[in-house]
Amino acid sequence: MSGARNITAALRRARVPRPRFAIRTVQSLTPLTARTFSASSTRTSDSRQIKFTSDAYPNLKRNPNFAEISAEDVANFKELLGSQSAVIDGVTTDATDDIEPFNSDWMRKYRGHTRLVLKPQNAQEVSKVLKYCNERKLAVVPQGGNTGLVGGSVPVFDEIVINTSRMNQIRSFDAASGVLVADAGVILETADQYLAEREHLFPLDLGAKGSCHIGGNVSTNAGGLRLLRYGSLHGSVLGLEAVLPDGTIVDALSTLRKNNTGYDIKQLFIGSEGTIGLVTAVSIQCPPRPKAVNVAYFGLESFEQVQQAYLAAKGQLSEILSAFELMDGRSQKLVIESTGNKHPLEGEYPFYCLVETSGSNAEHDMAKLESFLESVMGDGIVADGVLAQDETQFQALWRWREGITESLSHLGGTYKYDVSIPLSDLYLLVEDCKARLTEKGLVGDDDSFPVRAVVGYGHMGDSNLHLNVAVRQYSKEVEKAIEPWVYEWIQKRQGSISAEHGLGVAKREFIGYSQNETMVKLMKQLKNLYDPNGIMNPYKYI
Amino acid sequence: MSGARNITAALRRARVPRPRFAIRTVQSLTPLTARTFSASSTRTSDSRQIKFTSDAYPNLKRNPNFAEISAEDVANFKELLGSQSAVIDGVTTDATDDIEPFNSDWMRKYRGHTRLVLKPQNAQEVSKVLKYCNERKLAVVPQGGNTGLVGGSVPVFDEIVINTSRMNQIRSFDAASGVLVADAGVILETADQYLAEREHLFPLDLGAKGSCHIGGNVSTNAGGLRLLRYGSLHGSVLGLEAVLPDGTIVDALSTLRKNNTGYDIKQLFIGSEGTIGLVTAVSIQCPPRPKAVNVAYFGLESFEQVQQAYLAAKGQLSEILSAFELMDGRSQKLVIESTGNKHPLEGEYPFYCLVETSGSNAEHDMAKLESFLESVMGDGIVADGVLAQDETQFQALWRWREGITESLSHLGGTYKYDVSIPLSDLYLLVEDCKARLTEKGLVGDDDSFPVRAVVGYGHMGDSNLHLNVAVRQYSKEVEKAIEPWVYEWIQKRQGSISAEHGLGVAKREFIGYSQNETMVKLMKQLKNLYDPNGIMNPYKYI
Repeated sequence: MSGARNITAALRRARVPRPRFAIRTVQSLTPLTARTFSASSTRTSDSRQIKFTSDAYPNLKRNPNFAEISAEDVANFKELLGSQSAVIDGVTTDATDDIEPFNSDWMRKYRGHTRLVLKPQNAQEVSKVLKYCNERKLAVVPQGGNTGLVGGSVPVFDEIVINTSRMNQIRSFDAASGVLVADAGVILETADQYLAEREHLFPLDLGAKGSCHIGGNVSTNAGGLRLLRYGSLHGSVLGLEAVLPDGTIVDALSTLRKNNTGYDIKQLFIGSEGTIGLVTAVSIQCPPRPKAVNVAYFGLESFEQVQQAYLAAKGQLSEILSAFELMDGRSQKLVIESTGNKHPLEGEYPFYCLVETSGSNAEHDMAKLESFLESVMGDGIVADGVLAQDETQFQALWRWREGITESLSHLGGTYKYDVSIPLSDLYLLVEDCKARLTEKGLVGDDDSFPVRAVVGYGHMGDSNLHLNVAVRQYSKEVEKAIEPWVYEWIQKRQGSISAEHGLGVAKREFIGYSQNETMVKLMKQLKNLYDPNGIMNPYKYI
Repeated sequence: MSGARNITAALRRARVPRPRFAIRTVQSLTPLTARTFSASSTRTSDSRQIKFTSDAYPNLKRNPNFAEISAEDVANFKELLGSQSAVIDGVTTDATDDIEPFNSDWMRKYRGHTRLVLKPQNAQEVSKVLKYCNERKLAVVPQGGNTGLVGGSVPVFDEIVINTSRMNQIRSFDAASGVLVADAGVILETADQYLAEREHLFPLDLGAKGSCHIGGNVSTNAGGLRLLRYGSLHGSVLGLEAVLPDGTIVDALSTLRKNNTGYDIKQLFIGSEGTIGLVTAVSIQCPPRPKAVNVAYFGLESFEQVQQAYLAAKGQLSEILSAFELMDGRSQKLVIESTGNKHPLEGEYPFYCLVETSGSNAEHDMAKLESFLESVMGDGIVADGVLAQDETQFQALWRWREGITESLSHLGGTYKYDVSIPLSDLYLLVEDCKARLTEKGLVGDDDSFPVRAVVGYGHMGDSNLHLNVAVRQYSKEVEKAIEPWVYEWIQKRQGSISAEHGLGVAKREFIGYSQNETMVKLMKQLKNLYDPNGIMNPYKYI
């Protein structure tokens, strides 16, 4: 990749008016810590310090219709699954240390009281387990890599955790059609590496890729970094295998790109967060792996210019545009503070963008990128920027975007809002939220203020903002200042209170801000149809 | 577009071994008849000659639970809709000539007995009508442009036709996000022309675009010519407005690209063929209109080479590949016979392919296409070909693909099978079917044989074949020779008996060949949930 020379030449041709508008190469980007995070970070005894969800949400009461797990149940599960390693038994033994990682989430925000974890190996075993639980009215929580952000994959009370980690086989891949069939418990990165060896790409990428399971991705309808290029899972998932609460195995694992023979029932499992069934396998359409990938990172003076840059990228990079990410100045300062790394740009800007292209011809892609840079810098839209020169710099630039979540997690707690708003108002929410919290005297640099920072970043190309309020510790005062105000703000603009994270426990009460009464009624009707005993992932959004 | 020169130069460089491998420019392509067809071709009194579906399918019996339409019902509908033009009344008046076009399909294969057509103007009117019908147990058939291929949009007995043609307003378009919101009765081509003026593209294109309604497209989950580029409607439809049989208006008309707040109920209406509700409006994600579009048309010696050419196109044209269509030699002869047009290639080949690229940079696209042609011709995969030099030639080449349906319709009747099969076996079905019918003495050139031709064409890029058996007239003998043999053939290969046309009346009995018992049971459960009286599009697949 000889980008630097090309870009410099391009800028010379563009006769850029202000000298600081020059694209520089990245000289010495120090890698941040690993790009992926893992649920194992919570797998220590200090998870006991995490507040129980049942205490944090005192209005949640254990459903008295659910049975309590008995020693006989445990014995039956051991027989059904026929393996010691498939059952972590905290009912008849003291297995607290082994159980705790499954009780709490990686954000240390949600913690349940389960005493039993089951790890079935295939749909047949899941079917036996669910049928038994349904008959006994034992509540369950499906759990993949436990990387969710709304407390959707951990128990609230004593629900049995059904973990998918032992369903981890890739079943087939057909290079001609690009269709991958894999068990739900395959880790996203593992699936993508498998595909990379076969010159294909998993059509989903996200920060937690090293831990999350593809079954969990499908169940939460994960969006991630490249949705604007590869589309929604509702389009790319061709088939599913899932188990209903009554033990029915839904075999809709078609590998066909087109199949118009009746209702597309598999769609109901995509994004329903394990509340109507447990996904055990996925068939997915994977695109050829791009031969050339470029990343540029910019500083911009205003959100107006961010919008202009996005429209220019959409128009000029068009079919090769694979990501357009937004990061505000505060979020980048947090990454600097937490990693000590040198920022790739010299000046400070209120906004930064990361633009990625993916295509089949490096020369063509660079020419398009050059022309795009020429136009946005010539027009004064972009103030300064760098272009990755090799794989190391590529990864390093991405870490300025992907490292935000981890940097925030070092600060204490984070109130996370993952919202969809019309593009023109996207950043206004961060400004309004900060003004509100400042006005209430909650924000400050010293430890007497509960709020450390209000930051915004996200997937500009999908109109998807992550508003994060970093706090020194979780407090009702801060929560009350933000909620329901933030949801009302979003509702006024016909936005979504959960663009890609789902509802889980965190947003269970707020669905009405993004769905009307009829829709909620129809959802409840479906929930009752498939799960009349309500055993699947209870106390969550439905 | 200076393609001809570039390609010649490329071929010179490739040192193509056989002289006939030269790509020539299209000299004088005579345009075929109009690309689109219209339901109006059946709007003549000779529609009375079409056999009644109730006679063709004697096992279909009118459901005795349904009420008969009375004069009072008609008066009530006139009051509900408040407009004379909204009701075509064949109950209290003799309106046969006005009614007949709504009773029969454009293929002249299905004909119902309706005496009432309603044309509501919005979801509120549809709601009033359906609520009334549901209470009175009057059966209804939703109808858009009536261009379906499986008899799904015409009545079988006296079902009331609810036609969407008066719901024809484009509601909004946002250039920044590319989201279009439009009534269900907007004609696909009208929507696309509206978008073209705004530099965007409707992410669906098909032969019937001049007549079909976007609501009908969504209800049948239409695939069409460019699915391999723009994906399925399950991915691109962002929101829907629909009315349930009990009159409930489902307002899920979100314009957000991402909205993970509960079950994605709108997905159930995509492809359910009007059996659980009537779609009244659609919100859809539209991509920027490509600035450069190229079309090449090839002759190939074997299906093995067609597969090689497809894989080469997928790998080399990658992100700019927007269509890869297959046509067999027989299908192209039919177009020649029916139009009298000169074929673009001099020699005769058993297979032809049409490859389209769409991109943002004409020079880059041409370079990629050139390199692709160099490789497939240099490797002896493609035998001969032409490249469109201007818009007229572009349209003319496409007509060799899109004209097949119309050319077939001039021959008498057509048994149409729209199937999905793994790529390697895609054309084998046509060969096996032809061998079978020939063996049974049914195929021949003179009028004593019922079958005139067995042809295959379709969307190679989606593994979607259209097997068409052209007959001098529809006959039970031919039908019995093909069915259920063809479905068994597909089932053995885990294919789909309906890739994109849907099931309708034509394939209602055969769903079991592509869906297992559990899936059919789950579909019936949903049908009963939403339409307990069964009034929505009865006698169809569910």
